[in-house]
Amino acid sequence: MDVVEFRPQPDQYAWTFGGVAPTHRIKPGTALKLWTEDAFSGRLQRPTDRPSAVLDMTEVNPQTGPFYVEGAEPGDTLALHIVDLTPARDWGASTTIPFFGALTGTDRTALLNEPLPEETWIYQLDRAANTVLFEARRSDVRIELPCNPMLGTVGVAPAGREVRSSLVPDKFGGNMDTPEMKAGTTCFLGVNVEGALFSVGDGHYRQGEGESCGTAVEGAMDVTLIVDLIKGGAPEWPRLEHDDHYAVVGSSRPLEDAWRASQIGMVRWLGDLYGLDQLDAYQLLTQISKAPLANVVDTNYSALTLVEKALLPAGDAFGGMHRHLREQARSL
Amino acid sequence: MDVVEFRPQPDQYAWTFGGVAPTHRIKPGTALKLWTEDAFSGRLQRPTDRPSAVLDMTEVNPQTGPFYVEGAEPGDTLALHIVDLTPARDWGASTTIPFFGALTGTDRTALLNEPLPEETWIYQLDRAANTVLFEARRSDVRIELPCNPMLGTVGVAPAGREVRSSLVPDKFGGNMDTPEMKAGTTCFLGVNVEGALFSVGDGHYRQGEGESCGTAVEGAMDVTLIVDLIKGGAPEWPRLEHDDHYAVVGSSRPLEDAWRASQIGMVRWLGDLYGLDQLDAYQLLTQISKAPLANVVDTNYSALTLVEKALLPAGDAFGGMHRHLREQARSL
Amino acid sequence: MDVVEFRPQPDQYAWTFGGVAPTHRIKPGTALKLWTEDAFSGRLQRPTDRPSAVLDMTEVNPQTGPFYVEGAEPGDTLALHIVDLTPARDWGASTTIPFFGALTGTDRTALLNEPLPEETWIYQLDRAANTVLFEARRSDVRIELPCNPMLGTVGVAPAGREVRSSLVPDKFGGNMDTPEMKAGTTCFLGVNVEGALFSVGDGHYRQGEGESCGTAVEGAMDVTLIVDLIKGGAPEWPRLEHDDHYAVVGSSRPLEDAWRASQIGMVRWLGDLYGLDQLDAYQLLTQISKAPLANVVDTNYSALTLVEKALLPAGDAFGGMHRHLREQARSL
Amino acid sequence: MDVVEFRPQPDQYAWTFGGVAPTHRIKPGTALKLWTEDAFSGRLQRPTDRPSAVLDMTEVNPQTGPFYVEGAEPGDTLALHIVDLTPARDWGASTTIPFFGALTGTDRTALLNEPLPEETWIYQLDRAANTVLFEARRSDVRIELPCNPMLGTVGVAPAGREVRSSLVPDKFGGNMDTPEMKAGTTCFLGVNVEGALFSVGDGHYRQGEGESCGTAVEGAMDVTLIVDLIKGGAPEWPRLEHDDHYAVVGSSRPLEDAWRASQIGMVRWLGDLYGLDQLDAYQLLTQISKAPLANVVDTNYSALTLVEKALLPAGDAFGGMHRHLREQARSL
Repeated sequence: MDVVEFRPQPDQYAWTFGGVAPTHRIKPGTALKLWTEDAFSGRLQRPTDRPSAVLDMTEVNPQTGPFYVEGAEPGDTLALHIVDLTPARDWGASTTIPFFGALTGTDRTALLNEPLPEETWIYQLDRAANTVLFEARRSDVRIELPCNPMLGTVGVAPAGREVRSSLVPDKFGGNMDTPEMKAGTTCFLGVNVEGALFSVGDGHYRQGEGESCGTAVEGAMDVTLIVDLIKGGAPEWPRLEHDDHYAVVGSSRPLEDAWRASQIGMVRWLGDLYGLDQLDAYQLLTQISKAPLANVVDTNYSALTLVEKALLPAGDAFGGMHRHLREQARSL
Repeated sequence: MDVVEFRPQPDQYAWTFGGVAPTHRIKPGTALKLWTEDAFSGRLQRPTDRPSAVLDMTEVNPQTGPFYVEGAEPGDTLALHIVDLTPARDWGASTTIPFFGALTGTDRTALLNEPLPEETWIYQLDRAANTVLFEARRSDVRIELPCNPMLGTVGVAPAGREVRSSLVPDKFGGNMDTPEMKAGTTCFLGVNVEGALFSVGDGHYRQGEGESCGTAVEGAMDVTLIVDLIKGGAPEWPRLEHDDHYAVVGSSRPLEDAWRASQIGMVRWLGDLYGLDQLDAYQLLTQISKAPLANVVDTNYSALTLVEKALLPAGDAFGGMHRHLREQARSL
Repeated sequence: MDVVEFRPQPDQYAWTFGGVAPTHRIKPGTALKLWTEDAFSGRLQRPTDRPSAVLDMTEVNPQTGPFYVEGAEPGDTLALHIVDLTPARDWGASTTIPFFGALTGTDRTALLNEPLPEETWIYQLDRAANTVLFEARRSDVRIELPCNPMLGTVGVAPAGREVRSSLVPDKFGGNMDTPEMKAGTTCFLGVNVEGALFSVGDGHYRQGEGESCGTAVEGAMDVTLIVDLIKGGAPEWPRLEHDDHYAVVGSSRPLEDAWRASQIGMVRWLGDLYGLDQLDAYQLLTQISKAPLANVVDTNYSALTLVEKALLPAGDAFGGMHRHLREQARSL
Repeated sequence: MDVVEFRPQPDQYAWTFGGVAPTHRIKPGTALKLWTEDAFSGRLQRPTDRPSAVLDMTEVNPQTGPFYVEGAEPGDTLALHIVDLTPARDWGASTTIPFFGALTGTDRTALLNEPLPEETWIYQLDRAANTVLFEARRSDVRIELPCNPMLGTVGVAPAGREVRSSLVPDKFGGNMDTPEMKAGTTCFLGVNVEGALFSVGDGHYRQGEGESCGTAVEGAMDVTLIVDLIKGGAPEWPRLEHDDHYAVVGSSRPLEDAWRASQIGMVRWLGDLYGLDQLDAYQLLTQISKAPLANVVDTNYSALTLVEKALLPAGDAFGGMHRHLREQARSL
């Protein structure tokens, strides 16, 4: 297996999906060992750092890539299998950014209220215990939480000649911010442009569903991926496969529309897998869906429909690509 | 412990929260052994039954109750501990009702599209295996699914002199349709009127998160509850406690507002439990929330914020009422 | 024409639609000369009055009525023609109520922000000039605005055994808060219970579309109505007819659903009036709709689809009832 | 005054805001005489043309431009004064595109319903009467409607390195689809990139508020503009000035957020104009706002807050730029 290693310098970060020349051209089947900077571009480091003072809002959510996948054409399906996510620093950071987050007025839910106070939380990583430490800022509560690394942002160049901020999730993936994007996951994305031009970034050492305040435990990440390509079969919305679950991510507003997109995506996927008519798939989903929210803070909200494989007959999604990539991963 | 048994006759069903005389007066600490009819009032029985032909839409979601709890006053907190839920029939039913459900135009998301076709699915219960059988209507797919009984509807009389349909969830509880309302759960509801006047109904043998098509595996249920009362402390939105999780249910539209209500409810609860300042609680929630949707089909949508106790220091919600009721339940 | 005069005493106010015994039984064709208290129950009188100090939130939006209309049965259409609205005091009041309004977090759009400051504006009425005077609280800007009296709240008892707060708009009408409910308007409401049980209240001396801060120029009102009844023909959502416009009011959340309900209502009405197929009516609406918002602050938002009669062929809505009532009004 | 005339050839159309090289460099103060193709790229011509057969969805909403304005820098304000809009053909077209429109399921409000039938309406223009003729497809109803030309799409290159489809409205303007964008209007847009790079297109011979079915009476247009530049003062959302009204356009989902953005924009504008504190401006808006919806069909919905100048003291927005451009227009 070809293995490409890449640690971008700051002047190599991508800030958009689309509109950026590829850093590498790779063949399907290539493994990537990447480093991703955190969403704050590393600028938020101490509990006393205030985002309005230290952040440059034109340089948030840096992406590693994009990668040009040889042979990828519009209508094809890109498969990205996350082999490993390892924190690349011994601490992560989270904060409240003025007029950003789910429980405050924002530029979209535009209100007259003052912004919430700016606070920054630094989480120390304990690699032995595999935990990050929450330390309350306004009391002495301290709580060790499991470290569960994930990638907030995985996407390809958008359709329709668009170039989208790395802060936005949509049909092309992007800043979906779902804890389901973790080691062991295969992410299937429809290809919109020649070469697919995917990039990744926004590592989280831990995140709850919804990413309420808008920032997870943000941290630089060592990322190992295997990239593959399926000719044709592009799904409308990103699909995820774990060993134990299928999931579809929808991203829109209001939140019910994000979730509806994920539901329709799963109706179609169950149709593909089992030949189920759409009304039967709707009925089955009604009784088996799990609905873990991803983000309720970005320009589009993201919601998942997730179904447990153990409840279903054996299936063979995308020709068994996930199983194949799991096997490949073992050889790394 | 006092034990009251009650199997309502059809002319004793309640169709609203509020506006109905109590069927019983009970003391805090009483156990109830109840029977609840299914949401279709038992009228949907065969795969050939079409809802528009057999249902009476003025008689759906019948409630057992209401119960007048002695000593309950506005501002108090009613605790309902679900000891056991056992299917009372050997089959459950689900269907597509015209202009109802999450993936179709409705009377609220009013569109010009024709309604989806009416189909009915009857699920046979296998008590030994504890499964219900999904049988596709338009192919020969058959899938055994675990039977996971829950109550769709649990509520008290509303505030503000209102009387609300048993189809509606809101601050008073009601038709929240969350799979988290299961045996082992304690549900805490703010009391709005003297006696609280709570009722229960809408048993589901199984339901996914979101209740996509609008009807779960609906079935008559044998319900065992213990009722208790806490003076004062009324939460704004329903709170649930399991042995392993805390949860708050918000109900509103759009879906982000239902979820926001549940988030704010949990911010307050974490404040009560650990003395966390609201910004610290917001930060902690951001990293630990789970967000299982409940329903995206009723007049108000319902969403939960759920947190795992294992992640948190030991707490003592409502003076340890859940633990107390778990112990009481063992003596039944 | 029978004429009934009624000025309720405070202990005669109704606070809900449904659930209240009628104050009067009237025959179709009766004229009513009513007095309505303002939405604050008259408790907000000076710029220094703070709503959290002087208001009793269990006693807001008092209604005059309900009136039992003889012969009215479910499925019938109640016609309420507003003959005249005259301010009953020489001043009106508006204010910012904590956690209420369109540009602040609320109990539904639940956020962590502090409430906006409480301010009260008292508008002096100049009867000769027919103006109300806006006086800025935090600068010396003073602006004379035309007095345009309207009724915020007009409704019947709801369907489905419900009793709803007078603060809520829905299919039964209620607190729609549209400036289109003015002298010269006929309001058509579907009857849900025997006698219809309608009431009115919440006079506004002036209001913009959307009622942004949640309270218009609220004032006691002298109201002259003529009540009539059409057997059958109940519209799903309230319909308004002016000499120059037709309008349908939809009330729901999110706002697009309120507006969609009004659009579908108008598609049906244009079908009734001109025999237009629904796709043709959809096309025609696309080119002629006006969309004045009503409220974006109540439990349900209200939006109107309004069409100008001058653009359309002559029509004869509800058998010419509006024209008939206009003529009747002249005889008062 | 410099006058630039431009009729783009099909290979010169722009399909995005941003990401396209300018067709012209112009100085502030230049007049433009432009031709814009219709949103269907001229492909929908007969009532029998079905959009799924004749449209190329990668080539809809062609823009004329972009124009590079010399001296325009990020943070500046572009002023576009619409001098004249004259239909460039003798007919316009409207249609129902599958899964597009406000009263049908879409790719965002993703449902299982079949699409609505595809129908096409061709409106003949009567230049003498200044009318367009609605001809029902499924009955013989024919209605002459006033021709009220407007531009659906006016925008600059977006911020944040983005490139957005010409189908999308947002802070940069774009496909707002408001009937208020008519001859006599000055549109103020914040500049995001050097040269501003604005373009225009999507002429409508007539449109209702909301653009319900998704397509107005679409027609090629002869457009006369004057372009000017104000250093600094960039508004967050597009502002419009007529002789008789001020308006702010917000674009987002759900619809209440689009409207909230427009409200906050007007609170700020009233603050600029009259020194009003934001709470006083909120109060004033509550009593004087008009709320004409623009579109409830595009990727973002657009809503306006509009206030009548006659209600307000004399103001001098953007240093009197609108009045200045009105005078300039007379000299053309």
